[in-house]
Amino acid sequence: MHTVDLIMKKREGHALTQEEIKYIIENYTKGNIPDYQISALLMAIYFKGMNDEEAKNLANAMAHSGDMIDLSLIDGIKVDKHSTGGVGDKVTLILGPLLASLGVKFAKMSGRGLGHTGGTIDKLESIPGYKVELKVEDFIKQVKDIGIAIVGQSGDVAPADKKLYALRDVTATVDIIPLIASSIMSKKLASGADAIVLDVKVGHGAFMKTEEEAEKLAKLMVEIGRLSGRKMTAILTGMDEPLGHKIGNGLEVYEAIETLHGRGPKDLVDVTVEIGAHLLGDANIEKDFNRAKTLLHDALHDGRAFNKFLEVVKAQGGDLDVLSHPEKLLSKKLEYVYAESSGYIEEMNALEIGKAAMRLGAGRETKEDQIYMEVGIDLHQKIGSYVEKGDVLATLYVRDKGVDEAKRLILNALSIGKEKRDIELIKKTIK
Amino acid sequence: MHTVDLIMKKREGHALTQEEIKYIIENYTKGNIPDYQISALLMAIYFKGMNDEEAKNLANAMAHSGDMIDLSLIDGIKVDKHSTGGVGDKVTLILGPLLASLGVKFAKMSGRGLGHTGGTIDKLESIPGYKVELKVEDFIKQVKDIGIAIVGQSGDVAPADKKLYALRDVTATVDIIPLIASSIMSKKLASGADAIVLDVKVGHGAFMKTEEEAEKLAKLMVEIGRLSGRKMTAILTGMDEPLGHKIGNGLEVYEAIETLHGRGPKDLVDVTVEIGAHLLGDANIEKDFNRAKTLLHDALHDGRAFNKFLEVVKAQGGDLDVLSHPEKLLSKKLEYVYAESSGYIEEMNALEIGKAAMRLGAGRETKEDQIYMEVGIDLHQKIGSYVEKGDVLATLYVRDKGVDEAKRLILNALSIGKEKRDIELIKKTIK
Repeated sequence: MHTVDLIMKKREGHALTQEEIKYIIENYTKGNIPDYQISALLMAIYFKGMNDEEAKNLANAMAHSGDMIDLSLIDGIKVDKHSTGGVGDKVTLILGPLLASLGVKFAKMSGRGLGHTGGTIDKLESIPGYKVELKVEDFIKQVKDIGIAIVGQSGDVAPADKKLYALRDVTATVDIIPLIASSIMSKKLASGADAIVLDVKVGHGAFMKTEEEAEKLAKLMVEIGRLSGRKMTAILTGMDEPLGHKIGNGLEVYEAIETLHGRGPKDLVDVTVEIGAHLLGDANIEKDFNRAKTLLHDALHDGRAFNKFLEVVKAQGGDLDVLSHPEKLLSKKLEYVYAESSGYIEEMNALEIGKAAMRLGAGRETKEDQIYMEVGIDLHQKIGSYVEKGDVLATLYVRDKGVDEAKRLILNALSIGKEKRDIELIKKTIK
Repeated sequence: MHTVDLIMKKREGHALTQEEIKYIIENYTKGNIPDYQISALLMAIYFKGMNDEEAKNLANAMAHSGDMIDLSLIDGIKVDKHSTGGVGDKVTLILGPLLASLGVKFAKMSGRGLGHTGGTIDKLESIPGYKVELKVEDFIKQVKDIGIAIVGQSGDVAPADKKLYALRDVTATVDIIPLIASSIMSKKLASGADAIVLDVKVGHGAFMKTEEEAEKLAKLMVEIGRLSGRKMTAILTGMDEPLGHKIGNGLEVYEAIETLHGRGPKDLVDVTVEIGAHLLGDANIEKDFNRAKTLLHDALHDGRAFNKFLEVVKAQGGDLDVLSHPEKLLSKKLEYVYAESSGYIEEMNALEIGKAAMRLGAGRETKEDQIYMEVGIDLHQKIGSYVEKGDVLATLYVRDKGVDEAKRLILNALSIGKEKRDIELIKKTIK
């Protein structure tokens, strides 16, 4: 097989076979195929696309380029969730303990974040002592023992995807739906769960700007997962404003704890419960969607979810004291953003607010950046809220950098006007 | 300027500016932009094209990536010709001395061949002693003294083109008309001639298979040259059969000598005279096209053209004796291909016949291959000729390899049938 012939084949609009995709990914991972051939192929894929079968084969080839986590030693149906990335999205922190408290096996490997805020793993590291690196056997044992573990991606999960992603980033081939879908699904397939819910974010704070694009991506990921033998659901949720109120690592753990005590903001609870209800069904615990939602609300309010969170933090070595006093996770140095006019909040550009949090030190602009756990933004308003000029719009938890820029970004991100807007949070479900 | 943004710009179908193209070529030549970004850009160009202005800017940027030959020390109008490559094309060997004998300054830098047969320079090297490498100052002096020099590309002509071409070859981005045009024209612009005739070959023996494609390429090259201040003409000529009868380095010199004595085959003479007449006009020697042709025929028949050839070979150190006894250039070991049926020659697949010559050792399959000067093919027939079964179709001048394969290729390349076909040689002129 000659790589140049495969590039030509794709350039001419033909589908690559399973064997051809496997050849490309195996040899690219080993360094036998140079970057310059792959980038030409990626650009040809931009123009000619890939069909569902090709995307499935690509996802599987990338999954098999590294370790495939075998969760078969854990009884029952193992579940996973993935979000395409939104500002203030701390759903995993809540959903994991919540589901585990209802008997679902939640064996979660999460990534670190690059961008607005940290990833789930960065957030958990704001809890002193919490160990994100477990050996695979310890990870599996913990799930068997207490039903849940949340760890960083161990070892060598889908190295082909890492290599390919780095190349796409510098060759203008990031925004290609079959490649995005294969990239996400390669890691999901390698992580070994039986049932997966994907939360595809839509809106100006998300990677997918339109519902049409988001739906395409969601359908393709569901198809890839299903063709690979997994139970799949995708939901499209709005990212017109940040999810919940709090953005930043410690702040998000704080808000997760509040939510696990039954005091969470409505949008965050709604998304968590929506995803949870699908997974309760997939795990054969409660097939009726509305009854499943009730079960989840109950576990958030009666302490079971929070107690499971205590268990997992304890099992992974975290300091339990901060869970009772989550204010210890936050910076003592505060700054405020005030409304410059009166009216309804009409827009809250989530991406700009995410950038503001990053400038304060909550996220990484480059891989080498240090994250400050205690900084971030607490937004007091949501779209549709009425504010008076001079009201506090946001409290900033700061350290030593980015305050003025963050304030400016937040003010620019908010539009105050006469219209009381309603926004749709859960836009679509794809089974 | 960020390369990834320029790739994105082209991907979205926008034209790159002169500055952007210059930035890309300069930095790619220096190694500041990696191959993998350029190959993605090339594939985007495959799908989105380049307009004439971009192609001109690319050709000029590549020309300026290396030495620009300054021919201004030579009085008068310096001319050049280029063929996109055909089997049996020895026009330069004849045209140069012919034009120089009529007072035109022919300062020619030629490449080596990769493929069916050698390039002009390889062919000239079959003359013992002929020096293809001259210093630029000696090259210029020779043209001033005797009106002609034919040398190899000296120094560093269009290194960006070399680098880009090597990359295109392995990334399925060779067959892109604006890139082909820029590649050819970058070398022409760097070589310094004032007037250029391009011979664009069309047919199954040529790179351009259809007249439509060939015309597009020709028009674009003419436009690039004109926008860069050169007098330009392109002719489209057929490559349905090899040009002339002889293929192979020594054999082509032999046929060139015959032609310079006024004994050339009609098709070879016609193409040479056609190109020559355009250049006589461009050089202000004879503006009337038909009178120019008569001048050229006269110089071929009255010894002036051959005498000029003697002069140039002498000036460049070649053995004059073989010019009087060109049979010394040929192998003594002969093989024959016989007609297997009677009828008219209907097809002579030039590409396959070129391959046959290569198998005998006349051309290079890889850069490292050694060329045998004395081997090749003398075709006794042209399309439209009538042959009887058992007639000799071709004499092979051979050494130690490829004989059986060459015979098979030649027999397969020829179709003998009932139709007496006429083929059109000079298909179009683009001024």
